[in-house]
Amino acid sequence: MIHQVRVIFGDTDQMGVVYYANYLRWFESARAALLRERGLSGRHLVDLGVSFPVAEAFCKYRRPAHYEDLLDVDIQVTQLGLASIRFGYQVRRESELIADGHTVHACVDGSGKPVRIPEPLRAAFAPAG
Amino acid sequence: MIHQVRVIFGDTDQMGVVYYANYLRWFESARAALLRERGLSGRHLVDLGVSFPVAEAFCKYRRPAHYEDLLDVDIQVTQLGLASIRFGYQVRRESELIADGHTVHACVDGSGKPVRIPEPLRAAFAPAG
Amino acid sequence: MIHQVRVIFGDTDQMGVVYYANYLRWFESARAALLRERGLSGRHLVDLGVSFPVAEAFCKYRRPAHYEDLLDVDIQVTQLGLASIRFGYQVRRESELIADGHTVHACVDGSGKPVRIPEPLRAAFAPAG
Amino acid sequence: MIHQVRVIFGDTDQMGVVYYANYLRWFESARAALLRERGLSGRHLVDLGVSFPVAEAFCKYRRPAHYEDLLDVDIQVTQLGLASIRFGYQVRRESELIADGHTVHACVDGSGKPVRIPEPLRAAFAPAG
Repeated sequence: MIHQVRVIFGDTDQMGVVYYANYLRWFESARAALLRERGLSGRHLVDLGVSFPVAEAFCKYRRPAHYEDLLDVDIQVTQLGLASIRFGYQVRRESELIADGHTVHACVDGSGKPVRIPEPLRAAFAPAG
Repeated sequence: MIHQVRVIFGDTDQMGVVYYANYLRWFESARAALLRERGLSGRHLVDLGVSFPVAEAFCKYRRPAHYEDLLDVDIQVTQLGLASIRFGYQVRRESELIADGHTVHACVDGSGKPVRIPEPLRAAFAPAG
Repeated sequence: MIHQVRVIFGDTDQMGVVYYANYLRWFESARAALLRERGLSGRHLVDLGVSFPVAEAFCKYRRPAHYEDLLDVDIQVTQLGLASIRFGYQVRRESELIADGHTVHACVDGSGKPVRIPEPLRAAFAPAG
Repeated sequence: MIHQVRVIFGDTDQMGVVYYANYLRWFESARAALLRERGLSGRHLVDLGVSFPVAEAFCKYRRPAHYEDLLDVDIQVTQLGLASIRFGYQVRRESELIADGHTVHACVDGSGKPVRIPEPLRAAFAPAG
């Protein structure tokens, strides 16, 4: 799924490019958009009693992004474990690869204990979905 | 003009609502969207040799905004001076007013000296535009 | 009370100066430092069953702040109402005024209803304190 | 070298913990503090005609950090190449490991071309330093 973001001043730093931490914000926007596209929302997760804290994040910065750029954040589920999920991301400006990376998330219950990903989520996250 | 923003986790704080500083980011997104709508861009400003640093910002927080909210940021030019411009903003969730505020910007040249707003910008910013 | 902050790249934007929303982050840092100095903490507020959501924020930007600047954020309680409090802020680089502003906060209980500021807080916030 | 940071509301999200992107901000604070400790500054880099854009960032989140936590960000130079440098980071709350990670930076000249790290920087960055 592709999620678009527009670079604002607040995303840039004095090097004239997007500040490196902000890519992780875009990764999160893309995750939420992916959930919405598959008919899920934060409220569904609350109802299912689970949440997906980030266990690991990685980003490789290949070319700078600039103010006003309209960027495509391409997200895929790249691994679906019993109690964890991994997303891959590519950030592109038209056909040019700006950055890519991944995040890994544990599935935990209300007390923070790792639990199996509930079935409705598993179906929604299925890589082929 | 109305510019839409979607609340992400990164916008919220542990009170479960949008962190107050992030409204100023949305005000900036709306300003850039207004410029684009009127056929202008950051590049035009560079070509005209001017920029519009923020001189003053104000926001009144009326109701909390939450994760996943889709918000309308309504922006208007509320005052167009010789060398300054004032924008008004209302942030709404459907018909409910979440926050409102304003920013004032000076028009300065490359050395930071206040200058008259160049004619093409003046026309684009005209409140009736 | 004076709270010091150091400007990082992530605070700046491509104009080469601190992005305007980040002053509100520093105002918040100064508020928390003021509470700590007066022997209070977020935990105390939780125990007292109150919180202080921001009702209003204002900032006047007088001179740009830059990467690596070490800034003094001077905070005072400028008004202590029955159920609200107002803080004033001046941001300085040595003797130079960079920005000043204020925030207004309501005192609310767990359900968000305005309530009188509890006595221990009132004493701690007393302007003469 | 250990650099301390204090968690503010603006660092947290509605899960009640520090938002994952903000660790990268702290990594940057620690890098700047390390440079200062070794007698360098952004200005020195400008004089030497080089900058160190981030090529890669990684963070493993081990335990949540909370509002008001005072955290130690421990930074080391873990690899010093001809034209690149790698920093390692551990974020701790007292003896508890909260997160760890690394960043890799290219050394580039004013036109963005990779260049050898200038000698004064190489000495300052030397892992044994």
